[in-house]
Amino acid sequence: MTITRRTVLAGTALAAAPVGGSAALAQTNTATPSASASPTTAGSRQAPGFYRYKVGDIEVTAINDGFARRPLEGFVSNAELKDVQAAMQEAFLPSDALPITFNTLVLSQGDRLTLIDTGNGDMGAPTSGRWMENFRAAGFDPAQVDTVVISHFHGDHINGLRLKDGTAVFANAEIMVPEAEWAFWMDDARMNQAPEGMKGAFQGVRRVFGPMAQTVKRYAADKEIVPGLTSIAAPGHTPGHTAYMLSSGSGKLMVMSDITNHPALFVRHPEWSAVFDMDADQARATRRRMLDMAASERAQVAFYHAPFPATGHIAKEGTGYRFVPVQWNPAV
Amino acid sequence: MTITRRTVLAGTALAAAPVGGSAALAQTNTATPSASASPTTAGSRQAPGFYRYKVGDIEVTAINDGFARRPLEGFVSNAELKDVQAAMQEAFLPSDALPITFNTLVLSQGDRLTLIDTGNGDMGAPTSGRWMENFRAAGFDPAQVDTVVISHFHGDHINGLRLKDGTAVFANAEIMVPEAEWAFWMDDARMNQAPEGMKGAFQGVRRVFGPMAQTVKRYAADKEIVPGLTSIAAPGHTPGHTAYMLSSGSGKLMVMSDITNHPALFVRHPEWSAVFDMDADQARATRRRMLDMAASERAQVAFYHAPFPATGHIAKEGTGYRFVPVQWNPAV
Repeated sequence: MTITRRTVLAGTALAAAPVGGSAALAQTNTATPSASASPTTAGSRQAPGFYRYKVGDIEVTAINDGFARRPLEGFVSNAELKDVQAAMQEAFLPSDALPITFNTLVLSQGDRLTLIDTGNGDMGAPTSGRWMENFRAAGFDPAQVDTVVISHFHGDHINGLRLKDGTAVFANAEIMVPEAEWAFWMDDARMNQAPEGMKGAFQGVRRVFGPMAQTVKRYAADKEIVPGLTSIAAPGHTPGHTAYMLSSGSGKLMVMSDITNHPALFVRHPEWSAVFDMDADQARATRRRMLDMAASERAQVAFYHAPFPATGHIAKEGTGYRFVPVQWNPAV
Repeated sequence: MTITRRTVLAGTALAAAPVGGSAALAQTNTATPSASASPTTAGSRQAPGFYRYKVGDIEVTAINDGFARRPLEGFVSNAELKDVQAAMQEAFLPSDALPITFNTLVLSQGDRLTLIDTGNGDMGAPTSGRWMENFRAAGFDPAQVDTVVISHFHGDHINGLRLKDGTAVFANAEIMVPEAEWAFWMDDARMNQAPEGMKGAFQGVRRVFGPMAQTVKRYAADKEIVPGLTSIAAPGHTPGHTAYMLSSGSGKLMVMSDITNHPALFVRHPEWSAVFDMDADQARATRRRMLDMAASERAQVAFYHAPFPATGHIAKEGTGYRFVPVQWNPAV
């Protein structure tokens, strides 16, 4: 097909990430990263995947952790494949697989360094796992991080906290997690009752948080959890899934976390549900509410799974919305 | 206004480029670049401004040369300011000034290195002039360049060929220019008859090309001028303005040069004319023809003045079109 041949993402260099049923549910991937499959070691390198912008006095840095390809078939649980393919075609994306990117945020406020989410660590698809390299290329050091704020407990958000060998990556940081998320995933009874396909996700959460269970700080919704950063309950994707409002002076950024997966599908079609949404109806209501707020306030937004640098604005369009990326600014 | 406050480009760090009548016509800027006004020396730095993608076997690298701000008033010669401001608002851009970016292309074919256009050199706005740093960050050296292909003779495309002190920047390269462009700008009688406001543009062309007039190679339209790169006559913006089709295997890229200035204005509203278009009617016809071809063929396109990385696709929308940027790909 013409569209497949012509899209920039259709190159043979993109190894498809293996996808299993339980891995899909847990949004983790247990494939071993290999140097030879790295997106940047075979041939020419892309520029480092970080992008800085200001929100009032706060300097935000988006850090890219690469991407994973997901087969399109079965990815949207309540739409026909041909309609999903049409949305991909509208966005000039491949018609067979969705390239899902991972983008965390660093907030710099004077000497204070806060992360929102951590990427896949060494547990993701071979085309992910570039977070630490990009974080260091931006001039940061993991030992400097004061606070790590976690939006929810899917593997692509938490696995960067702890290496596969057990090492805690941010040795000096306070780790802050949504209390509703903690209550759900750390509940042994719930884990034992979970279907087999879900057990891996519970185990993954324990792998990361078990050794630090005594020190993890659990935060409530609608609280200022670090200066300028207010948690917003955004349940549905997971029970304790959290978005944020970042404010400094007149600057504002709505941090949308995973209220949508790829904007080309779920911002354009907010009624669609990704297989990762644990409570599809609740996720849909949250998505509608947040997108509507962003559009009506013309607020700048950041999405974890929007194409890097993963920040822009939301315009109302037809029965859905459109994500309009910011113009890349060589100045910070 | 809310939109101004919230847009990422509205920061105080963006010094407005001084604009004079003749400078506007010639699309050059004689302000002296100063280190203190550099977009990247005051405070945190952005990642280097290069982006690689493949077109068949050819590796393309977009190299950013920074940007310049142009007051919005008077920029579109045949539209009301309020309508232009509405288009800016639709794109979540500032309502007072247009940030115009500069993006050249490097083509790597085995050992052969070809440039298309060269940026502002040391003659542009203080917020431009980052080309050489970004070119070197991408691993290139100016001495390696085999061929420089010039699309047209405006200063932001040719001034990178020669430093203000007279040094030729690409010492080993063959310089290729459109023969219709050469015939127009190097015609002394035409220069002498030109209005005062245009004389600077003629003089700028002579500054760059005068010392190499015996060796510059003039190319015709609709010819393969380097392997895989075919010139396309695209007159109007200037008399010899040239676009290109880059082909390799099944890969294709339409290099649109300046058939539009900022896509948010002139892709959305192809009937509008920028003050830089020397023959507005001819430029409009060229723009329509090229945008229509790109949209109907779903071809990947590159624009010199699109936001970095300045490549994407063209979708038909209403009476105009929409520029859809590619998804940033961490793999090349």
